[in-house]
Amino acid sequence: MPFADRLNNVETSAIRELFKLLGKPGIISFAGGFPDSAMFDVEGIREASQLALSQDPGSALQYGATEGYNPLREQIASFMAHKGAADVKPEGLIVTTGSQQALDLLGKTMIGPGDKVIVEGPTFLATIQCFRLYGAEIISAPIDADGVRTDVLEALIAEHKPKFVYLIPTFGNPSGATLSMARRKKVLELAVQYQTLVMEDDPYGDLYFDEAPPPSLLALSAGVPGSRQWLAHCGSLSKVLSPGLRVGWMIGPEELLAKATMCKQFSDAHTSTFAQATAAQYLKAGRMPGTLAKVRQVYAERARTMGRALKKELGDAITFTQPGGGLFFWASLTGAHGKVDDGAVLAKRAIEKGVAFVPGAPFYAANPDHSTLRLSFATADVAKIEEGVARLAAAL
Amino acid sequence: MPFADRLNNVETSAIRELFKLLGKPGIISFAGGFPDSAMFDVEGIREASQLALSQDPGSALQYGATEGYNPLREQIASFMAHKGAADVKPEGLIVTTGSQQALDLLGKTMIGPGDKVIVEGPTFLATIQCFRLYGAEIISAPIDADGVRTDVLEALIAEHKPKFVYLIPTFGNPSGATLSMARRKKVLELAVQYQTLVMEDDPYGDLYFDEAPPPSLLALSAGVPGSRQWLAHCGSLSKVLSPGLRVGWMIGPEELLAKATMCKQFSDAHTSTFAQATAAQYLKAGRMPGTLAKVRQVYAERARTMGRALKKELGDAITFTQPGGGLFFWASLTGAHGKVDDGAVLAKRAIEKGVAFVPGAPFYAANPDHSTLRLSFATADVAKIEEGVARLAAAL
Repeated sequence: MPFADRLNNVETSAIRELFKLLGKPGIISFAGGFPDSAMFDVEGIREASQLALSQDPGSALQYGATEGYNPLREQIASFMAHKGAADVKPEGLIVTTGSQQALDLLGKTMIGPGDKVIVEGPTFLATIQCFRLYGAEIISAPIDADGVRTDVLEALIAEHKPKFVYLIPTFGNPSGATLSMARRKKVLELAVQYQTLVMEDDPYGDLYFDEAPPPSLLALSAGVPGSRQWLAHCGSLSKVLSPGLRVGWMIGPEELLAKATMCKQFSDAHTSTFAQATAAQYLKAGRMPGTLAKVRQVYAERARTMGRALKKELGDAITFTQPGGGLFFWASLTGAHGKVDDGAVLAKRAIEKGVAFVPGAPFYAANPDHSTLRLSFATADVAKIEEGVARLAAAL
Repeated sequence: MPFADRLNNVETSAIRELFKLLGKPGIISFAGGFPDSAMFDVEGIREASQLALSQDPGSALQYGATEGYNPLREQIASFMAHKGAADVKPEGLIVTTGSQQALDLLGKTMIGPGDKVIVEGPTFLATIQCFRLYGAEIISAPIDADGVRTDVLEALIAEHKPKFVYLIPTFGNPSGATLSMARRKKVLELAVQYQTLVMEDDPYGDLYFDEAPPPSLLALSAGVPGSRQWLAHCGSLSKVLSPGLRVGWMIGPEELLAKATMCKQFSDAHTSTFAQATAAQYLKAGRMPGTLAKVRQVYAERARTMGRALKKELGDAITFTQPGGGLFFWASLTGAHGKVDDGAVLAKRAIEKGVAFVPGAPFYAANPDHSTLRLSFATADVAKIEEGVARLAAAL
């Protein structure tokens, strides 16, 4: 069949292939990028869905506006205000089918074949693929423990004049890195100076363990004149409430939202109104703060456990920064004492020992660091984490 | 902002602008393309959503496979079997976020800039726009009361070598026309002969009033050797159960489904598992036949009422074929006795008289017939239909 040329730019991910092995009985998985099902507030979602169907079934089950269900847009605006972005109006955001769709709509709206897009190296794999499907040439900006290196980012923007810059500034996937306050301001200044759109993807910002991370670029944009015109932001209920609802959102300049809405009209007409009405009732019921507190506590304990276990079991064969939030450890194999220093080699051996994780190389759009690996602590409990890390040590 | 060139190919539809006027108090609307909210089986959907959350909340609220939630894929396969396509396997279909997304995935998978696609003239507006966003050049094949004219279609396929042919063979939108049995077989033969993919969009086939329409192209493909390899089919629960669930599906050759799944992974990861699990429970509970029987009866009465009223009130100023199913009358203004013969002019006057409908011209990708109009009988009750047609006569 004569498929479109754009399909030549992407491939089904190596990670997806790896996931097929996870069905093996007894495997402990650090591979996923998803929250723990056991933590879903099923009762709260049940009540919310019932209210959605009893209070306004006509709206919850009918076609809706492409921009989103208004009561949900109001709740999301209020949710963002609690996170420091007080000036987001309900009409200043659109609801998307998960934040993956926000990325897709950004690509559809902005990227033509050969256009350049700057991302962090490493970054979320599905973003790279999503943008490549629209013909983007992906440029990687390096990161360190304080997030993207803004000096290099500036040089890359000046050189490549990208359509936009895509960042996960807080508890990045896969890096776990959080952009420092000084660099956040610098990114906003660069957006204004070079008139270049910046997309802030923020699925993990609410999942902090001890102290809160710096405010989002969105929240900080109020203090950098002109930056709001060059800033888009996407968020999601997937990591904090339920991925299965597929409720995300995009905030951005009016002109961008108008074009994205037009594209969304022809992508899926609108996001499930049943899911949107359920999410709106959930947020309105005020259960989110309690849910977040619980999730943070459980993930914090798992992250501490994994950090301790990695140090104890793998010693100087591995280096990593203890994450302050999110779902991931990002680590490098040092090759000390002649041990394995390639994440992909270790991943294969690890499966044989009964533990799974994702090697880091595929997260780079270019120049992969093969020593890296990503370990999720979200879905295994404390005992499984200890056992899994012991198996990892055995594989090493 | 430097948007992608593809946005130059489309515009927000004239129809969408018209819809903004519908908020005017007291307007009777024949404009919508949606089912009547009053007919939603709210109780059945409530029970289904509760079962989804009680039986397997982990799956209903977690990330799911891009291809779809397996229990729903099984139910859809069984639903298709009841409609005569007995050989559709669960793994032979993917779940989409409404059938709009099936069209989008077809476009993303198949269409490159300048590729040609053949559609009926007139056809569903959002299809034309969706395909144009991927750079398609749209070719129109004319229809008559028996659906697309297959003699012209064959000549157009031979001349243009399109990427695919898109048809709504049963109770078409906006035409209401149903492709005859002989032409259905001819379309399948053409697909094989010219090795050209045909997409059958079938949102309305279940909404027949008296006798059932001919079997779908999908059902008939079993009798035309080789045709299944060149046939895709999309369906939806939107017109028969609830648009707000956003549950549709695409059936097609394995290779096409694999590519569409890859594209969907980067479009929205997967369709809401909560909506999918709810739909699966609904279908499993066996409520669909009763719901369909009720919907058919109510729409049939409304269609009869509208047909009678149009004849009585507008006489020879209008011509139309009485629809045997679906949601629409497709009519032409004759201009008899010096009356208005332009659908757009009448639409404006009609709004002033308190009735809304959609002029037909925008449904043509090329060479619009300005005398046409589309009247939906789905959302107004019998009394409102009579009153609305009387207002239409006054506007004329």
